[in-house]
Amino acid sequence: MSDAAALPLIGAAALRARAAARVLRTLPTDVKNAALAAMADALLERVDEILTANAQDVDAARAGGTPEATLDRLRLDAGRVAGVADALRLLIALPDPVGDVVRGSTLPNGLQLRQVRVPLGVVGIVYEARPNVTVDAAGLCLKSGNAALLRGSASAHRTNTALVAVLTEAAQKGGLPEGSVELLPADRASVGELLSARGLVDVVIPRGGASLIERVVREATVPVIETGVGNCHVYVDASADASMAEAIVLNAKTHRVSVCNAAETLLVHRDVPFLPRLLSALAQAGVTLHGDDAARDAHPAVVPATDEDWATEYLSMDMAVRVVDDLPAALDHIARWGSGHSEAIVSDSATAIAQFTAGVDAAAVLVNASTRFTDGGEFGFGAEIGISTQKLHARGPLGLPELTSTTYIVTGAGHTR
Amino acid sequence: MSDAAALPLIGAAALRARAAARVLRTLPTDVKNAALAAMADALLERVDEILTANAQDVDAARAGGTPEATLDRLRLDAGRVAGVADALRLLIALPDPVGDVVRGSTLPNGLQLRQVRVPLGVVGIVYEARPNVTVDAAGLCLKSGNAALLRGSASAHRTNTALVAVLTEAAQKGGLPEGSVELLPADRASVGELLSARGLVDVVIPRGGASLIERVVREATVPVIETGVGNCHVYVDASADASMAEAIVLNAKTHRVSVCNAAETLLVHRDVPFLPRLLSALAQAGVTLHGDDAARDAHPAVVPATDEDWATEYLSMDMAVRVVDDLPAALDHIARWGSGHSEAIVSDSATAIAQFTAGVDAAAVLVNASTRFTDGGEFGFGAEIGISTQKLHARGPLGLPELTSTTYIVTGAGHTR
Repeated sequence: MSDAAALPLIGAAALRARAAARVLRTLPTDVKNAALAAMADALLERVDEILTANAQDVDAARAGGTPEATLDRLRLDAGRVAGVADALRLLIALPDPVGDVVRGSTLPNGLQLRQVRVPLGVVGIVYEARPNVTVDAAGLCLKSGNAALLRGSASAHRTNTALVAVLTEAAQKGGLPEGSVELLPADRASVGELLSARGLVDVVIPRGGASLIERVVREATVPVIETGVGNCHVYVDASADASMAEAIVLNAKTHRVSVCNAAETLLVHRDVPFLPRLLSALAQAGVTLHGDDAARDAHPAVVPATDEDWATEYLSMDMAVRVVDDLPAALDHIARWGSGHSEAIVSDSATAIAQFTAGVDAAAVLVNASTRFTDGGEFGFGAEIGISTQKLHARGPLGLPELTSTTYIVTGAGHTR
Repeated sequence: MSDAAALPLIGAAALRARAAARVLRTLPTDVKNAALAAMADALLERVDEILTANAQDVDAARAGGTPEATLDRLRLDAGRVAGVADALRLLIALPDPVGDVVRGSTLPNGLQLRQVRVPLGVVGIVYEARPNVTVDAAGLCLKSGNAALLRGSASAHRTNTALVAVLTEAAQKGGLPEGSVELLPADRASVGELLSARGLVDVVIPRGGASLIERVVREATVPVIETGVGNCHVYVDASADASMAEAIVLNAKTHRVSVCNAAETLLVHRDVPFLPRLLSALAQAGVTLHGDDAARDAHPAVVPATDEDWATEYLSMDMAVRVVDDLPAALDHIARWGSGHSEAIVSDSATAIAQFTAGVDAAAVLVNASTRFTDGGEFGFGAEIGISTQKLHARGPLGLPELTSTTYIVTGAGHTR
């Protein structure tokens, strides 16, 4: 186990969280739900102090030259606070995964075997300047019986401090132990300590861009769930319906460009007759198209693409376009350049669809549907803490069950080998 | 993705495995089973060349002063080769996890959601001088649709080379792609390359002692499944039956001392009346007892224990003994010193059992049963590649389903958001 004393920024908080986790794992669902309700109430009751702290963060960020889009993510108002309180209340209605029996059997020797869901323990979350994540992450962790170590961005630190003060006071009144939710200092070094706190922290979930994920993967000795990098493709098969393809590609690219499940590259079978029309629709929607020679032949607005374009998660109104000889060539492209997030096919061929779903290695494969559907809310999970792009533990939207581990409970009557 | 050219020892093999994995994930079960049968046949047919290579390894190890116990683990004979061939055949009868639908639903908007098991891809295994692991690991990986990158010990390299030559020739005759099973060089540096081969290798599973696990956790940027470190406890409650307690403690400690599910520490409630008899039984069985003052008062053979004893996975005929005031004190000891492998309680109190199973955070909790039951074979999994002591992905014995990930397949009819 890491020595808490060697972690000056987070050691004390991690020890409190560790102690809290031992209590949280044994709490019945109704106690956790009552605490969530109290936390939601407290956010509304104490909205003024939250907004005062937030205004200071926003003013400081504006004075520091932060762009308006970032300020908007940072900014809270009464409506947004009510929104995060509502999100906490939604968690109350969701099933508690803790105690679920995943599998069970009676073995030939009479031993009773049950695999039961248990909390992970202490969950660290590293995220950027969205204060709503503070509340969402705390709520998801507590409902699943975990203590939360929150490391938000420096620019939101006053807001996060106010939010966590409100949440923890309500949670403790509701019977949750001290240490259930801890806000860590926003220093850069606190991330490093969190990533090395083996034995004190059970998992770290980074929520942020590619550079944060890279740092976490490089430095972490604590287990990590990677989230959120999405270089997603839509493949339009030779058999695709023209208007369905157009609707899906437009939706996947333009519905919301800054999110990980937005499409970044369009792959089109060379026999698709409607490529010019499809590219026109994208260009008219304001999309800058970066294409190979065949795409440039199909539409004058297409600018030349390089390997850089195939590799890029634009998160903007840009799209790479490549014409492929056949479906295997599309699979090759996705295997080479994809990030394993969401890959879509538009096709009316059952054979092509089967080949695509079998051949693509990603968290989600979408058949005649937009990549934008890869989302915990859309999947009916009720809430998500991120979208995992790794293969271990959990892949795709992370709901409450994904915030648990399991224990085998083996019951005998004096059994020996 | 890591640059294969920057991995001189393993890059070419990893690329072949990566290509093989794309084929393996799409192979039907009967093709994989036929290959397993061919591999088992080939091991028997070519037993002579395997034993010749093994004799060279054993001679070299003996000349290097390797102790007899280690030589015995390294040594193969016709019976042992037949044993590993049988183990391959057992895999044929096990269900193929690939394609299993883990959950599925039709969403309110008509989208059909299925979460389907898929292979992990390329699985790296780092292990010590047991040649049977070469065959077991290759078989488990192939049955679950994964390519295997095997990094065995230098002392078994001739044997492993012969085994992998036999296995791959048979596998390829059976229709599996080149690269399905690759043996990596036994250089120390090849482990480092494997651990850094992000994007080429999907997971590394170390099978070995604490120092190997430590190195892997420290160095790996590739996801890891930790296995095998077991500092396991048996807690004898005040309500325990004397003869049941004696049988379970003796079995857990002495049945096989060198394995991770052997017990290392005995915790005894201070109101247990039969502690002297229990310690006598252990001493008579040849166990060296390291105890606290109360244990030393109970039996003259007990030598003084230090914190070092609570921390140690002896893997020998030694056992630490501590008398605790109550069950919460036992839980505190386990939380402080346990490795999260297997923890047993002997008790006739339903309240105590419930408190113990809720309070212990481990891969397995055994109630009135020996810790030795934490085992894939004992659990009825048919085979295991190790016992995970981590909380993410899989905890406890790792069978075939634990060698898979999942993909969400989302089928629409032109759905957009």
